[in-house]
Amino acid sequence: MGNTFGQLFRITTWGESHGGGVGVVVDGCPPRLALTEADIQPELDRRRPGQSSIVTPRKETDTVQILSGTFGGKTLGTPISMWVKNQDMRPDAYSEMATKFRPSHADYTYQAKYGIRNWQGGGRTSARETIGRVAAGAVARKWLRERYGIELVAGVIQVQDIQAHIDPDQLTREAAEANIVRCPDAPTAERMIARIEEMRSVGDSVGGLILGVARGVPVGWGEPVFDRLEADLAKAMLSLPASKGFDIGSGFGGITLTGLQHNDPIRNIDGKVRTTSNRSGGIQGGISNGETIYFRIAFKPVATVMHEQDTIDDEHQNTTLKGRGRHDPCVLPRAVPMVEAMTALVLIDHALRHEAQCGRTAAP
Amino acid sequence: MGNTFGQLFRITTWGESHGGGVGVVVDGCPPRLALTEADIQPELDRRRPGQSSIVTPRKETDTVQILSGTFGGKTLGTPISMWVKNQDMRPDAYSEMATKFRPSHADYTYQAKYGIRNWQGGGRTSARETIGRVAAGAVARKWLRERYGIELVAGVIQVQDIQAHIDPDQLTREAAEANIVRCPDAPTAERMIARIEEMRSVGDSVGGLILGVARGVPVGWGEPVFDRLEADLAKAMLSLPASKGFDIGSGFGGITLTGLQHNDPIRNIDGKVRTTSNRSGGIQGGISNGETIYFRIAFKPVATVMHEQDTIDDEHQNTTLKGRGRHDPCVLPRAVPMVEAMTALVLIDHALRHEAQCGRTAAP
Amino acid sequence: MGNTFGQLFRITTWGESHGGGVGVVVDGCPPRLALTEADIQPELDRRRPGQSSIVTPRKETDTVQILSGTFGGKTLGTPISMWVKNQDMRPDAYSEMATKFRPSHADYTYQAKYGIRNWQGGGRTSARETIGRVAAGAVARKWLRERYGIELVAGVIQVQDIQAHIDPDQLTREAAEANIVRCPDAPTAERMIARIEEMRSVGDSVGGLILGVARGVPVGWGEPVFDRLEADLAKAMLSLPASKGFDIGSGFGGITLTGLQHNDPIRNIDGKVRTTSNRSGGIQGGISNGETIYFRIAFKPVATVMHEQDTIDDEHQNTTLKGRGRHDPCVLPRAVPMVEAMTALVLIDHALRHEAQCGRTAAP
Amino acid sequence: MGNTFGQLFRITTWGESHGGGVGVVVDGCPPRLALTEADIQPELDRRRPGQSSIVTPRKETDTVQILSGTFGGKTLGTPISMWVKNQDMRPDAYSEMATKFRPSHADYTYQAKYGIRNWQGGGRTSARETIGRVAAGAVARKWLRERYGIELVAGVIQVQDIQAHIDPDQLTREAAEANIVRCPDAPTAERMIARIEEMRSVGDSVGGLILGVARGVPVGWGEPVFDRLEADLAKAMLSLPASKGFDIGSGFGGITLTGLQHNDPIRNIDGKVRTTSNRSGGIQGGISNGETIYFRIAFKPVATVMHEQDTIDDEHQNTTLKGRGRHDPCVLPRAVPMVEAMTALVLIDHALRHEAQCGRTAAP
Repeated sequence: MGNTFGQLFRITTWGESHGGGVGVVVDGCPPRLALTEADIQPELDRRRPGQSSIVTPRKETDTVQILSGTFGGKTLGTPISMWVKNQDMRPDAYSEMATKFRPSHADYTYQAKYGIRNWQGGGRTSARETIGRVAAGAVARKWLRERYGIELVAGVIQVQDIQAHIDPDQLTREAAEANIVRCPDAPTAERMIARIEEMRSVGDSVGGLILGVARGVPVGWGEPVFDRLEADLAKAMLSLPASKGFDIGSGFGGITLTGLQHNDPIRNIDGKVRTTSNRSGGIQGGISNGETIYFRIAFKPVATVMHEQDTIDDEHQNTTLKGRGRHDPCVLPRAVPMVEAMTALVLIDHALRHEAQCGRTAAP
Repeated sequence: MGNTFGQLFRITTWGESHGGGVGVVVDGCPPRLALTEADIQPELDRRRPGQSSIVTPRKETDTVQILSGTFGGKTLGTPISMWVKNQDMRPDAYSEMATKFRPSHADYTYQAKYGIRNWQGGGRTSARETIGRVAAGAVARKWLRERYGIELVAGVIQVQDIQAHIDPDQLTREAAEANIVRCPDAPTAERMIARIEEMRSVGDSVGGLILGVARGVPVGWGEPVFDRLEADLAKAMLSLPASKGFDIGSGFGGITLTGLQHNDPIRNIDGKVRTTSNRSGGIQGGISNGETIYFRIAFKPVATVMHEQDTIDDEHQNTTLKGRGRHDPCVLPRAVPMVEAMTALVLIDHALRHEAQCGRTAAP
Repeated sequence: MGNTFGQLFRITTWGESHGGGVGVVVDGCPPRLALTEADIQPELDRRRPGQSSIVTPRKETDTVQILSGTFGGKTLGTPISMWVKNQDMRPDAYSEMATKFRPSHADYTYQAKYGIRNWQGGGRTSARETIGRVAAGAVARKWLRERYGIELVAGVIQVQDIQAHIDPDQLTREAAEANIVRCPDAPTAERMIARIEEMRSVGDSVGGLILGVARGVPVGWGEPVFDRLEADLAKAMLSLPASKGFDIGSGFGGITLTGLQHNDPIRNIDGKVRTTSNRSGGIQGGISNGETIYFRIAFKPVATVMHEQDTIDDEHQNTTLKGRGRHDPCVLPRAVPMVEAMTALVLIDHALRHEAQCGRTAAP
Repeated sequence: MGNTFGQLFRITTWGESHGGGVGVVVDGCPPRLALTEADIQPELDRRRPGQSSIVTPRKETDTVQILSGTFGGKTLGTPISMWVKNQDMRPDAYSEMATKFRPSHADYTYQAKYGIRNWQGGGRTSARETIGRVAAGAVARKWLRERYGIELVAGVIQVQDIQAHIDPDQLTREAAEANIVRCPDAPTAERMIARIEEMRSVGDSVGGLILGVARGVPVGWGEPVFDRLEADLAKAMLSLPASKGFDIGSGFGGITLTGLQHNDPIRNIDGKVRTTSNRSGGIQGGISNGETIYFRIAFKPVATVMHEQDTIDDEHQNTTLKGRGRHDPCVLPRAVPMVEAMTALVLIDHALRHEAQCGRTAAP
């Protein structure tokens, strides 16, 4: 009962890893936005399995189909239903999981919560669920770009202990997409790729950090006191599989500064209200201030590893289980489009909520 | 339009720093819970100004009054309206803010968003707004304790660079309440207090980390895919004033581990399903697994400092502003009851949502 | 858990007949609307007890106080908290109801649902609960008038079998307010008043019909397929105490016509799109078409009568109960402002929802 | 932005008459309910075109497919996605509607609201949209029957001026399904069928009344003050295409009675709390009282008639339009399963909401 996100641009995702398919219904999309599958597919291609040597080899084209909500290539204002058929399903690969719970997966908690679970490929807990998010996010990002000129981009800035130091104002999609790990710093990217390949070869996995950036967000978006813009971003990011942390602006690093060091002075620069530093991360008091919004998300190492691990079976007897099947040794490369999609979904919802109460905001 | 939190235990807060008062309406509280002001006031006393030498000296008793929703000392199942009258208001102290925006406050963003703001004492952006949250949280925590035996506690674990190393399983309310900074490690607490007093004396401020802990949460709470338990906790914490980051379990620290190192093995221990480590932080796949839930929240240093800083006025002319009035040099001691309150609000909402769809879960 | 109405202009009411008071929190009101108690009080005066010889003599001034959400006489965009203190409470008058359930009241159902109830004056089921609605409705109607020039009016068109035939396009507030029963047809009003007084004298009660009208609603409001404008109006009206039916446009009467007779032809009249009849009642396919919106609400006779009636006590033993205390022999005169308030609340919510998705609509 | 219904059992419908198909996503369904297409299809067959001589001859098998949310024939607790592919589409039949607005249809209001519309077959305003409702309703009604033994049934009780007098306690599905018009009184049904066939032959249409009944609803469902059970039923019914009115229990007819005549006495009958009459229609104060819930819905005559009518074109020039294509001369026979479905959707949502706050209610 938590498969809907957003209040005015409201998406509902559905589908399991092994079943008819996965999809999403978008309600509340503004009408007359030009939209065809060609706007959606490129984003899905970025999250698709089999796209490179460091992601899972599951063979899915993830070809999206728009079933409703458009007419003559434009949105109608009615619900947009999009889906992707599941193709490369291998339920047999998961037969051991019918009775054993994978450690640090959601097998045990789903079983305990619902008293039933689809154990094939992780069922609803599979990352395939995010296809609907990425498809809906592609619609949102197009509207944000066309109506407000907003630019959304994310990149991998850390894999295990390998860090890239990236200025949020300089992060570009081109740089992030220039390599298969989606790290905008090429030399670091090479080391990250090597680490991931090493981990795969020993049947282990790694996690890391993604930097998310939104440029061009107008002043005024965010709905205090609970639906602050950073609160909804935090929720969006922590709703992604394998995410364990979120911070914005100076974040966890900012706590060693004093107030005087941390505050962002405000200046009128060439007629524009700007802050001369941006430790706030583009949001103050829960509301965007026109500066670049940037935040980090921590992803844990993938739970599926090719080693025998202690667990229990469905009768709660101690046993062991060794990972099998096709898995990502690191979720981060494929998580980049998910982070961008969730950012887009948060922003469009807040854009519409702000316009509803306060009218349209001017561009920053 | 974002002043409501929760879906089934739904709170709506209202009020500005300088105005009639601040309050909350709680809708959806289960009936027949014993409840009087005596259940609420102790929590408000923990967040009240003037409670110690390291918090703001504003003189507010913050005496709560329950206006509806109870009868004969028990909840009716109808909305519970609670409020606190504002008393020690000094609008004159804020007159300069009528025309100048405080750096790293929400003055500019509120003005830009709404085209109007109550500049007296920060208006709606004042931490007084959290009174309603703490009052509602006291109701929630009582229900969680009585129905499920859940224990909620938070403590300050870092002030600027001064850290305490606290095991979530060992954190007790007694230890946290034993000193005015609410750090459960006494020697570290002394150093933190000294640092905060030093900062106050130089007109500066500091931030830090709070550790939040929930023990005794049954298996099965959390509503994937968007309303994962950690996602709603993240939102709740990032909705608190001055918070900049959230992580759960191994969090940002966990990313240097490999999957094999990070995974929590599952064991049947004396008939109970347990994990032998708890890097997951008590939540797997968005659903509680019966282990201790623990998370950290980063709070930035307080923005009000007693130094001249660059800013602009309401005609966007460059100017400077020096902080005045009564302020906290560090929000953390008073944020501890807020963190507990928000945790309680997330948990009761998920308890009711889980019971609605899946029925009552047994205690862990 | 059903005390909130609206999605973007969201009101939450609270309070029992006998308790601290009754009130409402409005979240989502557009900022910079001029608003003081003087905008609210006149509407409350129209629903207040003791206003005439045909309503309950309970002595309540129902003086409203705005506690938050305004500054310098204008709305801030933050929650508006308004309340009225209960004054003339006589719990003793209700002591028999502590153990007996009044027939066709909600005593038994509240007790069965919640396992507890405030039996003093009906508790939450008292019509005093509607004070919050009328206060919030006054805010909504002011905005609708100022921004769109919308005129809302309601009048009593039937008491028991005494009918007035009123053209929705001709119904004026002046005519409705010209007499104490609020029937816009003076001669019929006299007969209605006589009937109500007769019923009071014999300790009985009557019901009737109210006609609600909204003029000047722009084309385009309403959110198919579930939140059609008429569906939300129906819900709003059926949420009023004692209401038993709703119809719009031709309503129940329209079913004897054929399609050809019933359809409203569309014409361009002096450059405006109009229908030459209005059996649709101003709404087509769930969306306003620019014509006058009109609908009827059926209210049952008041359940409290001064006669011995069969009922049971709280141990489910058969017994009898005779109405006592201060009651309305007919709810309709006081329900008129409630109908207008609920209409305003539906319309402002749809105005904001429409503007959010589709932008501002031009006036009709 | 109004395509979702329900709070805990939440359905989102999508799809246009001419497009990829129509469908629904159900979120919040309790897990472990046995469910296959065989539970859904029979209800869709009752609303399907071409089922008899008095409905539209459009040839659609309306074969439903469950795409997610079940495993091994049982619900998972995850979203259930169901859809029906559109087959017999004839966009050419609607070409005139590309530029002309059908009177008393939603063509003009959709165009005005969204600035675009799918004019093929009515697009989103087509009754095909209700397929998703009926499919979701079939899931809801199965749960209600299995968990609470609730029986839902509806029947046509009036076509134009031809009335059947039906006692809600006696209405059975068998009787309603015994003839093609779904009127439980056989002789009246014959007259209704003759009238509808007559109307079809002259290219005109008729409306009428449906009686909806729910038996076996436990005491205690309904969420005052806004989400009263009858308020949500009213909204549900007024959200159906062509509906113009709703009343419950004594409804519009009850207003001529006095309070003493109208009240339902309460008695303990063989250990059960009952009312000896049921003018309340099974709901008191917004909460079910254990008696039969019954209500009426008024449907207007179908707007499409085979006669030249005045209208305008998309440049707002006066013109005329004559209905063409395949249409129902009377919506009532096919609306019967829709009424039952919406009733089921309201009841399951209230069942879950009640259980969440107050725990499970015993059967009446």
